[in-house]
Amino acid sequence: MKAPKILLLLLLSLQVIAYTVIADSQTCPATNIDSCSDGWEGEFFPGIPQIKYEGPSSKNPLAFKYYNAEEEVLGKKMKDWFRFSVAFWHTFRGTGGDPFGAPTKSWPWEDGTNSLKIAKRRMRANFEFINKLGVDYWCFHDRDIAPDGKTLEEANANLDEVVALAKELQGNKKVLWGTAQLFMHPRYMHGGATSSELGVYAYAAAQVKKAMEVTHYLAGENYVFWGGREGYQSLLNTDMERELNHLARFLESAVAYKKKIGFNGTLLIEPKPQEPTKHQYDWDAATTANFLRKYGLIDEFKLNIECNHATLSGHSCHHELETARINGLLGNIDANTGDPQVGWDTDQFLIDIAEATNIMLTVIRNGGIAPGGFNFDAKLRRESTDVEDLFIGHIVGMDTMARGLRNAAKLIEDGSLDELVRKRYQSFDSEIGSLVEAGKADFEFLEKKVKEWGEPKVASAKQELAEMIFQYAL
Amino acid sequence: MKAPKILLLLLLSLQVIAYTVIADSQTCPATNIDSCSDGWEGEFFPGIPQIKYEGPSSKNPLAFKYYNAEEEVLGKKMKDWFRFSVAFWHTFRGTGGDPFGAPTKSWPWEDGTNSLKIAKRRMRANFEFINKLGVDYWCFHDRDIAPDGKTLEEANANLDEVVALAKELQGNKKVLWGTAQLFMHPRYMHGGATSSELGVYAYAAAQVKKAMEVTHYLAGENYVFWGGREGYQSLLNTDMERELNHLARFLESAVAYKKKIGFNGTLLIEPKPQEPTKHQYDWDAATTANFLRKYGLIDEFKLNIECNHATLSGHSCHHELETARINGLLGNIDANTGDPQVGWDTDQFLIDIAEATNIMLTVIRNGGIAPGGFNFDAKLRRESTDVEDLFIGHIVGMDTMARGLRNAAKLIEDGSLDELVRKRYQSFDSEIGSLVEAGKADFEFLEKKVKEWGEPKVASAKQELAEMIFQYAL
Amino acid sequence: MKAPKILLLLLLSLQVIAYTVIADSQTCPATNIDSCSDGWEGEFFPGIPQIKYEGPSSKNPLAFKYYNAEEEVLGKKMKDWFRFSVAFWHTFRGTGGDPFGAPTKSWPWEDGTNSLKIAKRRMRANFEFINKLGVDYWCFHDRDIAPDGKTLEEANANLDEVVALAKELQGNKKVLWGTAQLFMHPRYMHGGATSSELGVYAYAAAQVKKAMEVTHYLAGENYVFWGGREGYQSLLNTDMERELNHLARFLESAVAYKKKIGFNGTLLIEPKPQEPTKHQYDWDAATTANFLRKYGLIDEFKLNIECNHATLSGHSCHHELETARINGLLGNIDANTGDPQVGWDTDQFLIDIAEATNIMLTVIRNGGIAPGGFNFDAKLRRESTDVEDLFIGHIVGMDTMARGLRNAAKLIEDGSLDELVRKRYQSFDSEIGSLVEAGKADFEFLEKKVKEWGEPKVASAKQELAEMIFQYAL
Amino acid sequence: MKAPKILLLLLLSLQVIAYTVIADSQTCPATNIDSCSDGWEGEFFPGIPQIKYEGPSSKNPLAFKYYNAEEEVLGKKMKDWFRFSVAFWHTFRGTGGDPFGAPTKSWPWEDGTNSLKIAKRRMRANFEFINKLGVDYWCFHDRDIAPDGKTLEEANANLDEVVALAKELQGNKKVLWGTAQLFMHPRYMHGGATSSELGVYAYAAAQVKKAMEVTHYLAGENYVFWGGREGYQSLLNTDMERELNHLARFLESAVAYKKKIGFNGTLLIEPKPQEPTKHQYDWDAATTANFLRKYGLIDEFKLNIECNHATLSGHSCHHELETARINGLLGNIDANTGDPQVGWDTDQFLIDIAEATNIMLTVIRNGGIAPGGFNFDAKLRRESTDVEDLFIGHIVGMDTMARGLRNAAKLIEDGSLDELVRKRYQSFDSEIGSLVEAGKADFEFLEKKVKEWGEPKVASAKQELAEMIFQYAL
Repeated sequence: MKAPKILLLLLLSLQVIAYTVIADSQTCPATNIDSCSDGWEGEFFPGIPQIKYEGPSSKNPLAFKYYNAEEEVLGKKMKDWFRFSVAFWHTFRGTGGDPFGAPTKSWPWEDGTNSLKIAKRRMRANFEFINKLGVDYWCFHDRDIAPDGKTLEEANANLDEVVALAKELQGNKKVLWGTAQLFMHPRYMHGGATSSELGVYAYAAAQVKKAMEVTHYLAGENYVFWGGREGYQSLLNTDMERELNHLARFLESAVAYKKKIGFNGTLLIEPKPQEPTKHQYDWDAATTANFLRKYGLIDEFKLNIECNHATLSGHSCHHELETARINGLLGNIDANTGDPQVGWDTDQFLIDIAEATNIMLTVIRNGGIAPGGFNFDAKLRRESTDVEDLFIGHIVGMDTMARGLRNAAKLIEDGSLDELVRKRYQSFDSEIGSLVEAGKADFEFLEKKVKEWGEPKVASAKQELAEMIFQYAL
Repeated sequence: MKAPKILLLLLLSLQVIAYTVIADSQTCPATNIDSCSDGWEGEFFPGIPQIKYEGPSSKNPLAFKYYNAEEEVLGKKMKDWFRFSVAFWHTFRGTGGDPFGAPTKSWPWEDGTNSLKIAKRRMRANFEFINKLGVDYWCFHDRDIAPDGKTLEEANANLDEVVALAKELQGNKKVLWGTAQLFMHPRYMHGGATSSELGVYAYAAAQVKKAMEVTHYLAGENYVFWGGREGYQSLLNTDMERELNHLARFLESAVAYKKKIGFNGTLLIEPKPQEPTKHQYDWDAATTANFLRKYGLIDEFKLNIECNHATLSGHSCHHELETARINGLLGNIDANTGDPQVGWDTDQFLIDIAEATNIMLTVIRNGGIAPGGFNFDAKLRRESTDVEDLFIGHIVGMDTMARGLRNAAKLIEDGSLDELVRKRYQSFDSEIGSLVEAGKADFEFLEKKVKEWGEPKVASAKQELAEMIFQYAL
Repeated sequence: MKAPKILLLLLLSLQVIAYTVIADSQTCPATNIDSCSDGWEGEFFPGIPQIKYEGPSSKNPLAFKYYNAEEEVLGKKMKDWFRFSVAFWHTFRGTGGDPFGAPTKSWPWEDGTNSLKIAKRRMRANFEFINKLGVDYWCFHDRDIAPDGKTLEEANANLDEVVALAKELQGNKKVLWGTAQLFMHPRYMHGGATSSELGVYAYAAAQVKKAMEVTHYLAGENYVFWGGREGYQSLLNTDMERELNHLARFLESAVAYKKKIGFNGTLLIEPKPQEPTKHQYDWDAATTANFLRKYGLIDEFKLNIECNHATLSGHSCHHELETARINGLLGNIDANTGDPQVGWDTDQFLIDIAEATNIMLTVIRNGGIAPGGFNFDAKLRRESTDVEDLFIGHIVGMDTMARGLRNAAKLIEDGSLDELVRKRYQSFDSEIGSLVEAGKADFEFLEKKVKEWGEPKVASAKQELAEMIFQYAL
Repeated sequence: MKAPKILLLLLLSLQVIAYTVIADSQTCPATNIDSCSDGWEGEFFPGIPQIKYEGPSSKNPLAFKYYNAEEEVLGKKMKDWFRFSVAFWHTFRGTGGDPFGAPTKSWPWEDGTNSLKIAKRRMRANFEFINKLGVDYWCFHDRDIAPDGKTLEEANANLDEVVALAKELQGNKKVLWGTAQLFMHPRYMHGGATSSELGVYAYAAAQVKKAMEVTHYLAGENYVFWGGREGYQSLLNTDMERELNHLARFLESAVAYKKKIGFNGTLLIEPKPQEPTKHQYDWDAATTANFLRKYGLIDEFKLNIECNHATLSGHSCHHELETARINGLLGNIDANTGDPQVGWDTDQFLIDIAEATNIMLTVIRNGGIAPGGFNFDAKLRRESTDVEDLFIGHIVGMDTMARGLRNAAKLIEDGSLDELVRKRYQSFDSEIGSLVEAGKADFEFLEKKVKEWGEPKVASAKQELAEMIFQYAL
């Protein structure tokens, strides 16, 4: 049986009051912005030090064992390989609620409301968090960082107010990407760009317009489209062709507007196969590439590959990254993982060092990921309710990626794996192989060769050896 | 990327006010209970007539085409085969919210709160609904029908107040089963009976105690345990053995309390493999049976099989029903279906007539399902937002089951399928077959027979013929 | 498509002798070809009559209850809607072997060898089968119909000999499509067009060249590429980019050769996500379309959609058909189904009338499927070992599709479902909607509209009603 | 376990002759058995040295980097923790065939037949292999090691002949377990113990009788039942209840016969959810436990858990191991892994060090696995065709398990993870907790406590911290 997913509203209005009292009794910190109009004093994470690199022998949960930001690996600093970003929505708006359960987190700076005051307070918490963690980027949805409004104008005004504060606070930190939340509000239940309602299409356009503007204002380096509702629940009541045409028109308009305002960041599409819809139009990297090619948009977008989305679509994360790479579309990585036995998006912090190594092999092969980066689209488990858990999750996630980078570098420096692959295809490095690759060997020519050559020799694929070489680097 | 699942609280408190104004402007219907202290006047479903059987040629969406309550099939009235029940939580507490989206339903009788007043109003809506639909049973969780409280005492008092009203209203309608909601409140985040916290185990006990009492009071014919949180998210931080021992203790206590209060209804466990937990202890019918046997509880419980849970566990619904049946455990059916491509519980109304036919073949073979029944643990899609959709979903669900019953009866009366199965095993109806089945044919005896008989004949399984016979009955 | 799991044919000498003795004792039928050099007398299916339409009340397993070839539905004869084809490999080369089991079928015309003599005998059986079944088309792989050879020359000579016989026998029957089997021989273990070995690429080219020639000679209407081995087992030892480039070169050469020999049939690619490889390059319709677009081949190929492959790739069959259709790529349908709980290709005869109805809705929307058709890429279960089972499987498959067509016609004639969809999108039929669809509504214009319009109205998606309308047509 | 996809052996006469000529030209090695009646001279693996431990810095693919047989970990030698076993079927009967492809391996000692001569030759190869690899155990199916016969008598005679040789050759090596192959022969297409044919049931009994005898004769320490065909393809033509009763009778007879012949080894059941059947009766550990309990067989059997089977059933391998352990049923481990994106049994060598660590945590918690062990039910990829690949696969598999053991020991010695778990449940270590665990706290008592205690405190589950601790041990 399935429970209603609503919150116990009565209890929550009660909680608003209770928390407000506590919050009001606090005073403003010295380092505050705008006279601490958010009514919060001092540090948000008082027991948490600046997270430092202490090396593999450390047992301190609040230290890095593998991630050493300034250390060079393959000629580049670790921090420049990764360009790590904190996802505002998970870290500051994740409540622990799930389809069967009410929120579980009660961060001390929250008062149970989504008022402008609390929105600003969260923004200050965000910068304390990323400073202590030692990352340089953050990502956001418009509706995560500021309260929605009864009208577009009100929503935009709220957004402007919070964005102005973020601009003041962010200093040398940067926005990796911004995006518009086109999935939570009931108006988007049939989609945004693919809604059956013209008015919703227009609303989505207006919302994306604004989100692009504020991303640009915050010197964002990319802008993301994730079409959580751009898909269908049933083909019986859906005109898929018409919806896809609308989606193309929408993205064309986004490209035009980007150019108009002089935003030079990369536009990214984030594939996901399903959830919340039964079928999402940007199913996986190849599906999205087909869409972009069909509508002449292939040069205007890149992809944001998320590992958990990859596995939900029936692919390994490595497959999706390589598919994006060889289509010239690898733009950003949402670094997380799913549960291999679970059929929904769990957005866990990646802890698999083999997977991290595969990811980094692709990133290195891609010459890096900039102007994209690694966004921690990962959240605490619902049952992890200590403030320090926020740090622990990110630390283990960053260390895992750092282990991946170190391992990938080891593999590349060792060279055995590359050599094994090179050798497999060496017959194509011959004269006739070159003709084939140049499109100059037709069927008749090749048939003649077969008659000359007789039965071809076929070598072992040496997969177990490749796995051995790979694993010994971990 | 994944969105925070919280509601936009600010907007909701706003909505409370708006709705209350409208609600207050209405007056009380003549047929009201308690002077309509809930402030609602007249019918809840004013445009909806009593749903009647009009036969297969009808195109009226608000009529049955196959379900004819009083019609006899295989010697029993349709309504007695099914004992259909409306699930209060989906029909009256389903909001259309999902992990990425806010509620979409705005039923006119709601005011955005979960006050006692609205709880009572919903209860009246519930009885109007089941009356118009023409079903005899309803099911509930304690926290669906009445607001939770800050203390157990307050919660129980709320429950008593609503239950008293339900008792007055229900007339000849009955409770198919009641249950305690041990999954939504944050206290249950680690489980109820399997929580790592003793205080939570105790709270769960107290809550089940009360839920059993009110189920008994409402003449409920069964009581259900669904362990949504009784499982684990990770084995790394879980003592599975200890948790299972606690679960057994808990269920033993429930059996004892049932007997103490003289409740004669069947205790039912509802298997589900996962969601919300990564692994739920009552994974499927066989897993649950193993648990019950291990702890000596096999005679005290039966199973509530849900089709969507069956398919999530990697089985067909028919498999789970048959497994329950041959273990003597088939107690109730949660009639719904999932999406074959989706890895979470979608709780859709079943519309597959082949599946319905298989279900009814098992139910007939079981001699019926009473004192259990068919509970519509099914909900409208998030995007279905008209009041009439509530009726349409149930009507098509009931008609589907009725088609299943009619088809199953056709198959049984025709007899070809049963005959095909009987013939497959006829070699065991021989003398030596009987010895085998009686446990009197040891390996040495059988080896001798093989030497006498030589290579055995093996007949075709005739699966395509079985499928042909089956399909021609649809 | 799935291949017969043949034994290494050269090796099967002992049984040849034993069976030949029996076979030689028979005499040649009057209607024989080539003096019955295959040593087989009389009918292959002696107890099986011409399969006729007897209508839904018939209980004759060897009659159609729904498929009535000459009956017109929506202005076209049933047989012209379907253009049914028998798959030679399943029906005449399927052995019942599986990864854990030896062959189970022992058709009377087989002698355990794959000699030319038996290959010809099978071809005669094939035409008796399709004549009795009343279908007009057949499909084949080169290696199904004729024995492989120690050299390409020998293999081609074998093929020529059998093809010459097929040409004589086929009369007014036609080849729906031919294809080359590039997956069973060990030389193809790393792929054909994507093999790491140049010699294998060349061999595959030579084999496809010949298969295209014989398909053309047999007046085939299409030619299929199924890349069972064109994919990878592990990315660790694979250069995916280079392999995809090779695949593109290969297909370009195939297009060139088609034109050179004047073959006007459609070239079809058959997507499948995996099996035998871990990842197949033609994963699904969208992936294949992306590949075709990237390499400029989009106008030269269409797709052969197989329902079982669709579900293995995480999509409904209907989704894949619609995706192919709206990309202008729907070329042929491999009509079969998988088991919803099973993760490999089971190639079962489709018996689900709802799925068949969805398929036909797409085919009707596509204006038919010609010059493609419905190929029964379906096989008997391993345990179905009677000759009549071959007919029963095809009959129930054809009847299922016929039910689908009748139901789809009913839905279209009724019009309610189309109307429901049309209404959902009617806001786009407005003046501003037209601007959007024409790409003339930029973000600034739309933002202005939102400010004018305020919060948009969003109607119910009416999915349950759509499902009700759909199901009542079944 | 997965069977070799052997050809029908009787039929393979032609090749025998061809190869025999070559084989006969070789002379017999000095160390031969029975005057080398198998016609094979010298070493089977001439270039392969004894595999030695060289430590993590070694880059020698034919050396262990982590497995050091005599090294003590947690007070026990590595070899005693693992009791590694080579699976005869994969290593010596695996052909590389798959449902779409012919065999790819051409080991030099094979001649394309399954004659007694070659069977003996393989047995000598087996012992050279396990000696060079340095393992102490091997496992077999009756039909792997010796050719089947036209009659039971002939099959048994063949088996006796090969077993006699094995007895001579095995020296201080031992059989970990033997089993009967009840799935490849067509007679078993409907099952062995659950066949619809009495004659097949009897044949299966006779075959198991003999397999138990030879296992006993070879001093086997366990005997395994894997019911690859004990299940169903369709419920429409299956009497599941009757089949399960037959299975119980069969196993009862096996227990009786074991006692009769004085075989003291453990009887093991190996769960697998499906493949080759659609549904296998021994689906997973819990399902099998339920069956054993229902039929009173729980004390007579333990389980052989295979990781790839675990994941196919929707569980992690760790879950299945823990389920077996806490049901007192953990008897043996088939150490392999599947592909997380693939829906069939791939039987790959495990290379995931996190999974190996989890496995070893359970084994240590179980006090070891003896008299069971770790059987390498793993095979080379079809494309791995060098003799050395056989060694490489096993070496990386053994090293992976050794890394798992070393990591698990590190975790246990560190103690942080155990402490984290212990603390989670510490409220149950109180006086009232003890009452609960003793079954002495009824619902009324607990309700009273709740009223005293008020809302319970619920601590963070610290999953990310647990994952951090776990991963830093890798």
